[in-house]
Amino acid sequence: MSQKQFMQNPWSNWMKGEGPDSDIVISTRLRIARNLRQHPFPLLATDSQGEEVVRKVTEVSDSEAMRKRHQLQVIHMDQINPLEKRVLVEKHLVSPHLAEESRKGAVLLREDESVSIMVNEEDHIRIQVLLPGFRLNEAWEIGTKIDDIFEKNLNYAFDETRGYLTSCPTNVGTGIRASVMLHLPALVMTQQISRILQAINQVGLVVRGIYGEGSEALGNLFQLSNQVTLGMSESDILSNLYGVARQIIEQERVARTYLLEHTRVSLEDRIFRSFGILMYARTVESKEAAQRLSDVRLGIDLGIIPNVSPLVLNELLVTTQPGFLQHHAGQKLTPDQRDERRARLIRERLRVVDSQE
Amino acid sequence: MSQKQFMQNPWSNWMKGEGPDSDIVISTRLRIARNLRQHPFPLLATDSQGEEVVRKVTEVSDSEAMRKRHQLQVIHMDQINPLEKRVLVEKHLVSPHLAEESRKGAVLLREDESVSIMVNEEDHIRIQVLLPGFRLNEAWEIGTKIDDIFEKNLNYAFDETRGYLTSCPTNVGTGIRASVMLHLPALVMTQQISRILQAINQVGLVVRGIYGEGSEALGNLFQLSNQVTLGMSESDILSNLYGVARQIIEQERVARTYLLEHTRVSLEDRIFRSFGILMYARTVESKEAAQRLSDVRLGIDLGIIPNVSPLVLNELLVTTQPGFLQHHAGQKLTPDQRDERRARLIRERLRVVDSQE
Repeated sequence: MSQKQFMQNPWSNWMKGEGPDSDIVISTRLRIARNLRQHPFPLLATDSQGEEVVRKVTEVSDSEAMRKRHQLQVIHMDQINPLEKRVLVEKHLVSPHLAEESRKGAVLLREDESVSIMVNEEDHIRIQVLLPGFRLNEAWEIGTKIDDIFEKNLNYAFDETRGYLTSCPTNVGTGIRASVMLHLPALVMTQQISRILQAINQVGLVVRGIYGEGSEALGNLFQLSNQVTLGMSESDILSNLYGVARQIIEQERVARTYLLEHTRVSLEDRIFRSFGILMYARTVESKEAAQRLSDVRLGIDLGIIPNVSPLVLNELLVTTQPGFLQHHAGQKLTPDQRDERRARLIRERLRVVDSQE
Repeated sequence: MSQKQFMQNPWSNWMKGEGPDSDIVISTRLRIARNLRQHPFPLLATDSQGEEVVRKVTEVSDSEAMRKRHQLQVIHMDQINPLEKRVLVEKHLVSPHLAEESRKGAVLLREDESVSIMVNEEDHIRIQVLLPGFRLNEAWEIGTKIDDIFEKNLNYAFDETRGYLTSCPTNVGTGIRASVMLHLPALVMTQQISRILQAINQVGLVVRGIYGEGSEALGNLFQLSNQVTLGMSESDILSNLYGVARQIIEQERVARTYLLEHTRVSLEDRIFRSFGILMYARTVESKEAAQRLSDVRLGIDLGIIPNVSPLVLNELLVTTQPGFLQHHAGQKLTPDQRDERRARLIRERLRVVDSQE
């Protein structure tokens, strides 16, 4: 796979939607932050020090041990254009920070995009595993094996008391952040979501929108992750997140059943109106698109809209983002032009699906 | 054609939409009010006096002279049920007053529903001619010939000074009310409509919504008619109405061109969103239905929505009315049930059309 294909193909493994509880859990993500001893943190490093880190990391990724498990391709951030960077961000393969602010930033990508290792982000190494559905343990197993290979070959910054050292103190300790992306339309519709979000904050977890910290919960997608990385073992972190996510999944299921049983007509009406609008509208803002795609996705998951794959929605959530739209158009677009292209893209995509009925 | 068919068939001649300027003028209506000398006005008549009037009128409608021009069927209001009456009202074949308040009310209907003669409404005889498109002269010719036949055979209440006498003083004189139903979405969208309506009131004309006096302008449909019946000749009344309607038609055309040239994307978006919603919604209130059908109709008339006949919209405007829906269902329906049936009816009707593309 060439570098370009990562930008052109909207399909990442994490969007393929096969996995446990994938009617509610869109994807699972695990991230491990690591740094090299005797190398300054990326924020303080010179260009040549940054290059040195990239060199060391790619050496390990090209090693026999790694290649047996994962074929990784390196993309240097200073060798791709802003639109291409944006696409990688929208596919969740790199962080906005790596794309826009890092010096000598790079990413090592597995072809199916289930593994992405950022180099010279806030930390020297950020191993990310992205899987569709609710698969925390599997993500942890993949991630920790990659971590082991690096640890054998590189000298990690590690402190007996504090654990793995990181650039930002919130990551010190295990260096682990695990998250699940939850689609919770019924909890939003039944107005239970704010009560649940408050409760989550009290058990050491945090909720963000689909595009990370501070982003709004577009399309009723909530990213639930651990807050604490220090003073808890990896397995405690994962089992705490698992347990809370499990509860929220069950609450969402109860809310969906409630809506079906008590407000079927208005629920169907809402879902089909969104479907009809997406099938015909000529201009759609990204916020509206996300909301209506959420309605349609719920309709598919409840069997109200037959013959449409939920995967189309995962794909459209990404391909209707500004960067992807502009990359696809091959040029910068004004917001109005983006809204028109977004509408056309959704229309054409849903129509293909609909005509296959 | 049996009596029942008038209630079951949604298609009246006036809905068939063929006629001059039918992209804007949905239909033309002419009404002539007449009374019989030496018979009390319907409001004051006893049942037997009312029956006597029906007998005299139907005698004339069965006469050779009338049958050569029009085959008329009589429907007695006290022989049909409330839902059937409501359907006749919704098809504009009888007035709400005749349906609900008259005693010994009846209507004589031509099979194509272009002629409807109400007996014992406010006046003994109300000859109505309904034609699609902008056809005032043709409506007048048809109406006046029917009037001539009645006048030859019945003794009309006529006064040399005041002209034809009527129950309500606003109709005295010529007894003529002519009206055109105009679809003016572009004048509404460009916010010119209130200025135009004000000007209309100053030239002796009056504007109402689609279902008569006091009714809102549902679906951007405006019924323009003469206010004055006294002190003007029939031809002055008709040419005044014609001239004003002509001006409004041209203003609507200018506004449509303006919208197409200056706001094409948002115009298309509005039109297609309405189409998409009507194609998929599960519950639609009558007001929303009228508004969205108006959008779709505009889209058809501007060539934005291809392959859909404007006639479907005329039909749906009538068939989605409460009476028609209930008659079709064969039972009384709650407002919620009506909204669901309305949505289904529109969906199925548009889908048939769309699949013929």
